[in-house]
Amino acid sequence: MQVNRKRIRGDLDRLSKIGPCPGGGLDRHFGGVSDLEARKWLKDLWKHDFGLPVSFDPAANMWLKTLGTEALAPIAMGSHADTVKNGGAYDGAVGVLLATEVLRQVIENGLRLRHPFHLVSFTGEEPSPFGFSTLGSKIVSGKLGAEDILGAVDRESGVTMSKALKDAGGDPEHLDRARLKPGELAAFIECHIEQGLILDDRRLPVGVVREITGIYRERIHLCGEANHAGTTLMGRRHDALLAAAELMLAVEVAVRAPGRGDLVGTVGRIEVKPNSPNIIPGEALLTVEIRTPDDAAREQVLDRISEAAERIEKTRGVTVERTVILDQRAAKMDACVMRALERAAEGFLTPVTDMVSMAGHDAAHMAKVTRAGMLFVRTIGGRSHCPEELADPEDICDAGDVLLRSLLILDKELD
Amino acid sequence: MQVNRKRIRGDLDRLSKIGPCPGGGLDRHFGGVSDLEARKWLKDLWKHDFGLPVSFDPAANMWLKTLGTEALAPIAMGSHADTVKNGGAYDGAVGVLLATEVLRQVIENGLRLRHPFHLVSFTGEEPSPFGFSTLGSKIVSGKLGAEDILGAVDRESGVTMSKALKDAGGDPEHLDRARLKPGELAAFIECHIEQGLILDDRRLPVGVVREITGIYRERIHLCGEANHAGTTLMGRRHDALLAAAELMLAVEVAVRAPGRGDLVGTVGRIEVKPNSPNIIPGEALLTVEIRTPDDAAREQVLDRISEAAERIEKTRGVTVERTVILDQRAAKMDACVMRALERAAEGFLTPVTDMVSMAGHDAAHMAKVTRAGMLFVRTIGGRSHCPEELADPEDICDAGDVLLRSLLILDKELD
Repeated sequence: MQVNRKRIRGDLDRLSKIGPCPGGGLDRHFGGVSDLEARKWLKDLWKHDFGLPVSFDPAANMWLKTLGTEALAPIAMGSHADTVKNGGAYDGAVGVLLATEVLRQVIENGLRLRHPFHLVSFTGEEPSPFGFSTLGSKIVSGKLGAEDILGAVDRESGVTMSKALKDAGGDPEHLDRARLKPGELAAFIECHIEQGLILDDRRLPVGVVREITGIYRERIHLCGEANHAGTTLMGRRHDALLAAAELMLAVEVAVRAPGRGDLVGTVGRIEVKPNSPNIIPGEALLTVEIRTPDDAAREQVLDRISEAAERIEKTRGVTVERTVILDQRAAKMDACVMRALERAAEGFLTPVTDMVSMAGHDAAHMAKVTRAGMLFVRTIGGRSHCPEELADPEDICDAGDVLLRSLLILDKELD
Repeated sequence: MQVNRKRIRGDLDRLSKIGPCPGGGLDRHFGGVSDLEARKWLKDLWKHDFGLPVSFDPAANMWLKTLGTEALAPIAMGSHADTVKNGGAYDGAVGVLLATEVLRQVIENGLRLRHPFHLVSFTGEEPSPFGFSTLGSKIVSGKLGAEDILGAVDRESGVTMSKALKDAGGDPEHLDRARLKPGELAAFIECHIEQGLILDDRRLPVGVVREITGIYRERIHLCGEANHAGTTLMGRRHDALLAAAELMLAVEVAVRAPGRGDLVGTVGRIEVKPNSPNIIPGEALLTVEIRTPDDAAREQVLDRISEAAERIEKTRGVTVERTVILDQRAAKMDACVMRALERAAEGFLTPVTDMVSMAGHDAAHMAKVTRAGMLFVRTIGGRSHCPEELADPEDICDAGDVLLRSLLILDKELD
């Protein structure tokens, strides 16, 4: 029993045509028209293939629910269909479409699962202009409620979160009903491209995730003094951009431990005022992100950033204001699901085990309310969140086979 | 004989009310409505005070021309009335309004000048969204012609240079007629706030400029690799923003010679792509500016920047592309005008002599076609191009007295 390779390639190909973006790649960010188009496409696909109604929970997460033969909690499988701007065709899409193919196999092979089986495609996994990521799974797991999100506005279009959720099929007035109680699902399995180079370096198609990294973000506001770039001599300057440059390099030094595969730090965003060639920058606003599953390492990095910030304040006569905007702790995957995924691969491929996901995923939040597990697919060249993102169809289909078998193992073993 | 202090304060006050800007300060950039409003105000003032027609040359520079008693080339005096965004009330305005007051004194005191005397307010001295600065004086001095500027478009409003010049009173179809032949003017004197701290540090109200700095600008495009900020380990990154940070600090080191008052370097502008908190920056675009009257020093700084760029290319695996966008050499002021300004101060104040202007000015271009000189007025706190820009009305009026006397000296001595 194997997944249908041609069908998977066809689905991926069709979904990759939705949301082409100026500058290359795809843009199906939550709140945009292409996200709605992808939702419609997936709804039609599920309705056509399974002849069952597609349901939207209040967070606009899409569900396709089949029954089991026993009165057990459902096993869910899926990922997300939205993308970043100029994103790739595999991130999220692979997980949703493989789950879809797994259910097709179950039906076509007349397999009678003991557990109900649910397909899911989560809302707004990627950062959206509303300022949230993994939005749907955070609502499902109770990490975000109406009070946290309903004031948000799409900073590009001005559309409210409430309208965007409604447009996508959600019900913002009853957001709490999207929440799952622990035990309400028996397990959740997410397949996703690795987005890194561990599998590619080791020339192996899939990996089983042990833990999903914690993600910490702060906004750093450096305030110096805007002034004339000619008449203000070097010793008289309080250049916020040079202060920011020092701080960025200090972040790099703080996270750069040779060989360490589970600690990274990034300044991905900078905004400078007034940002004019002949005016000394008066303000710089940075976003610093630290990712690691290791809380002690994170604290050490933050201490070093604090030291650097204090030193820079003194030497450059600028002020440094720091605001934590995200502090999401690491999530351990469920041992039982991990073992099922490993055993599912036995006999036809060797997965890398014990991987740490340095990307955040819906599975990190689902781990709060159920046994969650993740299967990674090799990313060719390790590039992701860009038009060059690439995965081998053969690897993807191998992952499909592992998912199908792991579902059967869990269906047998979980009660 | 002294300038009328109350009248100068009144004029400055009225002009400072034109073009208030969100975020504070003034915005009378060339191409905007407030520049047109200031032009109308100045035209009405000149017409009212002098009963003479105000003329606009094809570059939309405003001129008020009086006759002399002899057949000599005119002496011109003025500056500019446009501002940067969020700019101050003194930069440019002081020079135009003091020239205006000087002419009032000439008339009220029945002084019969041998030379014709011209007031001038130049077009677009500040950088405008068309991408030029000192636009009017560059056209007058032949440094810019129709072929250089008429393709330009206001990058904010989309308005063409041609339309902006016409709206301001110019004649873009006959731009070459704005050009002055060497000798067509006998001299040009510009008064301007210093915008630096030399006068303030020495507690002196005015200074005579010896030389106006050269200004060199290049655009530097750093190209790395955009990638996922979690899954791309530190050793695998080609972060364009960190490369830019290193380069910016290298520029600072290259120009920072202790005690040197005539060499500065600035990265005032940076643009990062994709500029998202969870994506490693793939591209950074910087503008680097070097100012010095010393060509050898500039070459040394550029060599050091080249060394840093090469090192960064190698160590970070990024490409660094550099494009020179401005290479304006230093301009020496005329010895005769400098002496006239110094002698004009004798007996009532001590000017700082031998100053280097680290800001560019219309006088730098006028020096190509006539004897040019500049008088600086102390800037309290040295801040400029910002709402906090400040000059003492007493200093401004002292400068007015120096200007009036220097005009009389030059009128007597120049033939």
